[in-house]
Parts: sequence; structure tokens; C-alpha cells
Amino acid sequence: MIDKLIEDIQKKKNPSVVGLDPTLEMMPDYLLEEYTEKYGKTAEAVSRLFTEFNKRIIDAVREIVPAVKPQIAMYEKYGLQGLMAYDETCRYASEAGLTVIGDIKRGDISSTAAAYAAHLGGADIQGQHIEPWREDAVTVNPYLGTDGIAPFTEECRDGGKGIFILVRTSNPSSSELQELKLADGRKLFEAVADLTVEWGRDCMGSYGYSEVGAVVGATHREQGEALRARMPHCFFLVPGYGAQGGRAEDVAGFFGQDGTGAVISSSRGITAAYQKEKKYSDRDFAEAAAEAAGSMRDALRAAIQI
Amino acid sequence: MIDKLIEDIQKKKNPSVVGLDPTLEMMPDYLLEEYTEKYGKTAEAVSRLFTEFNKRIIDAVREIVPAVKPQIAMYEKYGLQGLMAYDETCRYASEAGLTVIGDIKRGDISSTAAAYAAHLGGADIQGQHIEPWREDAVTVNPYLGTDGIAPFTEECRDGGKGIFILVRTSNPSSSELQELKLADGRKLFEAVADLTVEWGRDCMGSYGYSEVGAVVGATHREQGEALRARMPHCFFLVPGYGAQGGRAEDVAGFFGQDGTGAVISSSRGITAAYQKEKKYSDRDFAEAAAEAAGSMRDALRAAIQI
Repeated sequence: MIDKLIEDIQKKKNPSVVGLDPTLEMMPDYLLEEYTEKYGKTAEAVSRLFTEFNKRIIDAVREIVPAVKPQIAMYEKYGLQGLMAYDETCRYASEAGLTVIGDIKRGDISSTAAAYAAHLGGADIQGQHIEPWREDAVTVNPYLGTDGIAPFTEECRDGGKGIFILVRTSNPSSSELQELKLADGRKLFEAVADLTVEWGRDCMGSYGYSEVGAVVGATHREQGEALRARMPHCFFLVPGYGAQGGRAEDVAGFFGQDGTGAVISSSRGITAAYQKEKKYSDRDFAEAAAEAAGSMRDALRAAIQI
Repeated sequence: MIDKLIEDIQKKKNPSVVGLDPTLEMMPDYLLEEYTEKYGKTAEAVSRLFTEFNKRIIDAVREIVPAVKPQIAMYEKYGLQGLMAYDETCRYASEAGLTVIGDIKRGDISSTAAAYAAHLGGADIQGQHIEPWREDAVTVNPYLGTDGIAPFTEECRDGGKGIFILVRTSNPSSSELQELKLADGRKLFEAVADLTVEWGRDCMGSYGYSEVGAVVGATHREQGEALRARMPHCFFLVPGYGAQGGRAEDVAGFFGQDGTGAVISSSRGITAAYQKEKKYSDRDFAEAAAEAAGSMRDALRAAIQI
């Protein structure tokens, strides 16, 4: 995962990823009407609508960004039907050549973590291998420790997949636990960062970065810069840009001196861009997303000089 | 959730829950053959097989135990087809009158956590309410802090649902983070315990316990006893009994003096009981599960004198 992501970032000169976190509020009126008329106010309507919306967004941004990050919760909200849209979105993005980072934040104990690792490595049924999910990388919660991570790092080491460990999340309450001061002087998120470095040691790619990356929120500028120095071989997935308040200058220090080492994620800022400017009608949503993705790319290019 | 669970524990004199964590290795040969012959070595075969297996287990134990705990990872492993079996299992157990504790260990930031909370509260589609999932309670990961928990506690306070926060998990590596010593003298899991108490304060049931409970592994006997004293109004969901090594005497101190306050979970120890004794053939799997559930009940009854 990590080598292709880095190469595509360099090809497109764009270290950003579009978060595909659809909500009904984000849907263009004309599409919402079309699908609820056809399928009723049902999970099936939502699923088909989200799929259509995402495909149009993917078509619009595929030449601009190297990756997408669908947030599975937004689909799981609508049950099995909703998850069909997640799955179809992953497949469509993958076929478009984009790196697919599933924001699934799973985390469990050993044998159970191994089951979740099927998101990356698939499953065997009496000798028959299936790949029921299509992510290239997923986000993982560290609270259960190494045996909950190991099944994922195996897929990183042997299967060319990637993970991003939640180290420092972007939300306001994240400090309650993540900033707890430890007896040894570190903060909890720093302890998680140090474990993440260990977990990634055997999964190095060709460009100096491990397949085991870290989620570091754009809303923590100084901590992000300190983590960059603390874990030089760890690639950062950075949420919280745009709608959550992070700006290009806030995240410039999340990159290494060569302008690599991080990919910045924006969701609503791209996919709902049409709702923020009067010049767009709701039929322009995909075009607006492409323009917003281009503006974000240009802002990041200027901030990190790639 | 919590009042019904406590009442059913008292009615059945059994503070235990059967974990429904199916694996192919656990399936009786004759059923495995039947389903793979009919549906091939496919996710559909696995899904139908897991559903059939679980229904037979539920029929066998429904008069013995008050609750079941399906582990969603074991189903998610097989993609959307697998999740159909999770959903059908939850529905079937619910219709059998059992409390359904979805072991989903979700956890995300505010708006995303709200999407996951649809597991408990459902979703609205243009004014139409749907309930795409059927759990009465779910497990939740605390690493993201209060704003990741709030959407779930709302369902506890207003919707009569329940959650169990991962406080001290049963797996060997759980100590790496959960036992980190904080500068204030607490260990991390104690800080999580204290937050859990706060989160549950507005969600008290009729019997002195909150709808916001805690996951505390059976493998940590002394810590479980200390947590019992630390959080007297918090109900414990206790994994790690049986196959993971916990015994009835290990968990006796997880209960309050009146014998309430905890429910002990066993998965393989019940559902794969037929594989452990020669007297059973694979066609006896449901009967073996019922016997194992009865033995566990009797061991717990003896240990906590209810």
C-alpha cells in the first residue's frame, strides 16, 4: 500500500485524500428525490443513493487525488443495505486506481482481530480464498495492545497492505485519554506512537516509510510536528482538515523535509463543497468537489513546497 | 437493557451469557458438508451455516441463559454475506426473549460515533425511522473520549439501551496500554473506569446499576475485584471465562455482595462443547451446548451463592 500511495502522491503532486462519509444532508436534492421516489424512504434508497453519489465524486476527483477514505460508520448506520454502498464504493475506487483507506477503526483481541483483518487479507473457506472486502489499508484502534494489532501487521508484512493506528485523533474530547500524563513523563498518545513504531518495524516499504502508519489529527499542530520527529518512518493519515478547522499551514509540519510522510484527509470540505458556494447548483456537486479537491491540493502544494 | 438483564439473571439464577462467535472450525462436520455441497465454498454457505448453527444453539440455551453476545468480527470476516448471519442471529435471539449484547467494539469521533449508535437507536430517512440492527446493548471502545461516547449514552438515557465500555480486556497484550501508570498514580484502565462512571451517571436503572457498564476480563482477578469496589453502580460484562482461562472462583469477586453486578461470558466453552468430550457426536452440538451452559450456571451459582 505505502509505496503505491507515495508514488501516486508524487505523480499527482497531491498529498491529500478525499473522505467519503456520505450523509443524507450532503445529498443533492434532485438525487435524494429521485431515489426516495423510486425506492421509498428505505435503507435501499440510501444505499443506492450513496453509491451513485460516491461514484460521481470518484469520477470527478480520480485524476486529482491519490486516495479515498470511506468512513464505514456512515454506511453501517443503514445496516446491511448501507454496507453494500461501502463495499461498492471501495470496489469502484479501487478499479479507478485509487488507494482505498477504509476508516473502520476496528480493534479487538487476538483471534477476533484476525477476523477483522479479513478486511485486508480475506478469508479461507475450506481451502477456497475469498476477498469479501476491498480496502488497501484500514484504520485500527490500539487500546487492546499488540495481540490485537498483530493480525493486521501480518497483512502489512506479507500482503502488501497497510494500517493506520489511531495515535492522536482530531476530536475535542480526544485529549481526555490521549493526553493523560504517564508516570514516565510521556503522554498516552506518545506511548501509543512508540508502540506504533515497534509494530511497523518489520513492514518497511521502499521509500523509508512503514506500512504501519499513524492517524494524527490536523487539529493538533504542535503535537503533529513533535510526532513527525518522534516517528520518522511512520506515514501519517491526517483527518480534521477543512470542516474540522485544520488548514494547510497547520499541517505543513506533519510532513518530512522532503515533503513526504503524510496524507491529509478532507471529507465534507470536498464532497459537500457545492453547498457552500452560491455559484453551484445541486447538480454541480461533482464539479464542485473536483474544484475543492484542486484548491486543497494547491494549498498543500504551497504550504509544503512540493 | 440493564433492568431486563438483571431481572432475567435473577429469574434464571444465571449470571452468564453465551458468546456467539462462530468459526468454521467450530462447525459440526455434517452441517459443514451439507452447506458447502449446497452453496459451494462461498460466503453465502458460511452465512447460512452460521445462522443455522446459532439458531440451534439459541434454541438449546434460551431457557438457561439470559443473554447472548454475538461477536460481529466473526461475521464481518465473510463480508456482507457474513453480516447477514450476524443480523439474523441478533433478530432470532431477540425474538427468543434474550438480551442481545453486540460485541462490536466500535469507537469514533462525534458525528461518526453517532452513525455507529444506529446499532442501538436506528436511523431516520426523511422522517421515516428504521432499525437496521437489533442489539439491546453494544461494546464501545473509549480511546476517543467523551464525544465518541455521548451518542451511545444518549441511547442509554433516552432509549433504554445499554453499552459496555472496554475498561480492562482479557487478552495478554491488554496490559501494554491499559496498565500504563499515570502521573497521578492511577493506571490507564482506572482512568477509563472513572470516565465510565461519569458517562453512566445519567443512565441509572431501577436496581442500582447504570445502562453504561464496563468490560472487565475474567483473566484479571484482583483488578476485577478492585474495579467492583471502584465502580459500584457499573455492571460488568466479563469475557475470558472458560477457553481463555477464567474460572468461577476467579470471577466471584466481580459481583457485588448481593450476587448481582456482573454477567460472565463464555463462547467456545459453550458453543464448541461437543468437540471436547468423546460422549458427543457432532450431531449433539446443541445438546452439548445446553449441558455446558448448565454446568457453567451451576459453577457460578456455587461460587457466588445465588
